[in-house]
Amino acid sequence: MSKNYRGYFIDLDGTTYKGKKQIPAAARFIKRLKAADKTILFVTNNSTRSPEFVANNLRENHNIDVKPENVYTTALATADYLDGIAGEKRKVYIVGESGLRDALAACGFEITNQQPDFVVVGLDSQVTYAKLETAVLLIRDGAKFIGTNADSNLPNERGMVPGAGSIVKLVEYATQQKPLMIGKPEKIIMEMALQKVGLSRDEVVMVGDNYHTDIQAAINVGMDSLLVYTGLSKPAEVASEAVQPTNSVRSLDEWKISK
Amino acid sequence: MSKNYRGYFIDLDGTTYKGKKQIPAAARFIKRLKAADKTILFVTNNSTRSPEFVANNLRENHNIDVKPENVYTTALATADYLDGIAGEKRKVYIVGESGLRDALAACGFEITNQQPDFVVVGLDSQVTYAKLETAVLLIRDGAKFIGTNADSNLPNERGMVPGAGSIVKLVEYATQQKPLMIGKPEKIIMEMALQKVGLSRDEVVMVGDNYHTDIQAAINVGMDSLLVYTGLSKPAEVASEAVQPTNSVRSLDEWKISK
Repeated sequence: MSKNYRGYFIDLDGTTYKGKKQIPAAARFIKRLKAADKTILFVTNNSTRSPEFVANNLRENHNIDVKPENVYTTALATADYLDGIAGEKRKVYIVGESGLRDALAACGFEITNQQPDFVVVGLDSQVTYAKLETAVLLIRDGAKFIGTNADSNLPNERGMVPGAGSIVKLVEYATQQKPLMIGKPEKIIMEMALQKVGLSRDEVVMVGDNYHTDIQAAINVGMDSLLVYTGLSKPAEVASEAVQPTNSVRSLDEWKISK
Repeated sequence: MSKNYRGYFIDLDGTTYKGKKQIPAAARFIKRLKAADKTILFVTNNSTRSPEFVANNLRENHNIDVKPENVYTTALATADYLDGIAGEKRKVYIVGESGLRDALAACGFEITNQQPDFVVVGLDSQVTYAKLETAVLLIRDGAKFIGTNADSNLPNERGMVPGAGSIVKLVEYATQQKPLMIGKPEKIIMEMALQKVGLSRDEVVMVGDNYHTDIQAAINVGMDSLLVYTGLSKPAEVASEAVQPTNSVRSLDEWKISK
């Protein structure tokens, strides 16, 4: 008998779909959650896309009907976190794409390379040496260094290309400073997501396919987790981890939703 | 009484000049070495410039009259090293500038992104995500990963901007592979430099201002060293190192050249 969670945080790639391929059990799982009136929030380390884009993709390509409000990206988490700590310090330099820029602008941050208070580094498929040089010099000059997420790679049609974490590593090495990281497995994105849905950590379960990001984030924030073996992590690897996921299933069809 | 070295390997920035500023004692030192008929080789982690460019800069701006043959860059060392191990494997993909491209082309390497045998990553002030993506995918696909040098930063008119090592770090994190590194403090550049001048390691001293690159390279290859305190390293820091430089001076004027 599973615990009666009021909210479900759900990972995207590997959990809700696999790249461009559907995971039909995930679509059925979301339908069942909606029928049971659960709070649903897709929590993703992707910082490049808007919630609208993610919701459209789920609806049009994966048979999952959710609203932009059901999507929480590391861009939104970064903006919400900085909004909470920034006070009057509202100047930010960004290495990243429109998802990150729009999220920070929407929280009232001015995007500038002139004496910013923060430098936020995320995935940027148009990154150049000049942008990286500017980020490094601004951090060395005193701006606080924020990284959206530590993912070393992401899959695209060419293969496993460099992720946000790889760009962060360059800046880290060139500044000799550790960034404050926002995305999974850090707990900041989880705390911001809880704040967004207005639930406490014991009312929510984190659902994901990756032990080292999704499940670790749940462990770090003190939340229950549900590992689904449709993506990256394999049962034999997870068995050797010191802290086990609260729950695990081979398919989301196996998961019974308590009411 | 200093040992009678036949050859002097000499670092550039911090030792022979300071950015655009002259170090007059260094110019006098080179004159004295020439008068004593010593073998002189400037050994630098810079991979972006040609030996011709470096020699011109020394002559025109620093009152030091040497030939391109007296300059050994990490680009030349990379080319010489790969030339020695490559056999028929002559395809290389490069993240780097003209110094590196020219050195590898001169050794008969074909520069290509089609199934290269090696991916060489060095400083590239025009680097883009697309170039880094290609490098990462080629290494993940089996190409051998070579880094020119690990320097985290280099000084320019804007400040301490990202060095070759920072770009290497990005590729290392995105491939989860350690590169073979060529430049100081690694011993490969020293071995290649000895091969170039035809001297053995006990006939040569490495002169530099940076304990962690110049002196460490000498230690790693088993060569004597001369630390000059006109650049990065400070006496108090060096005093705490387990292995001390063979010799140290405050100015190269202090160094007596044995004949």
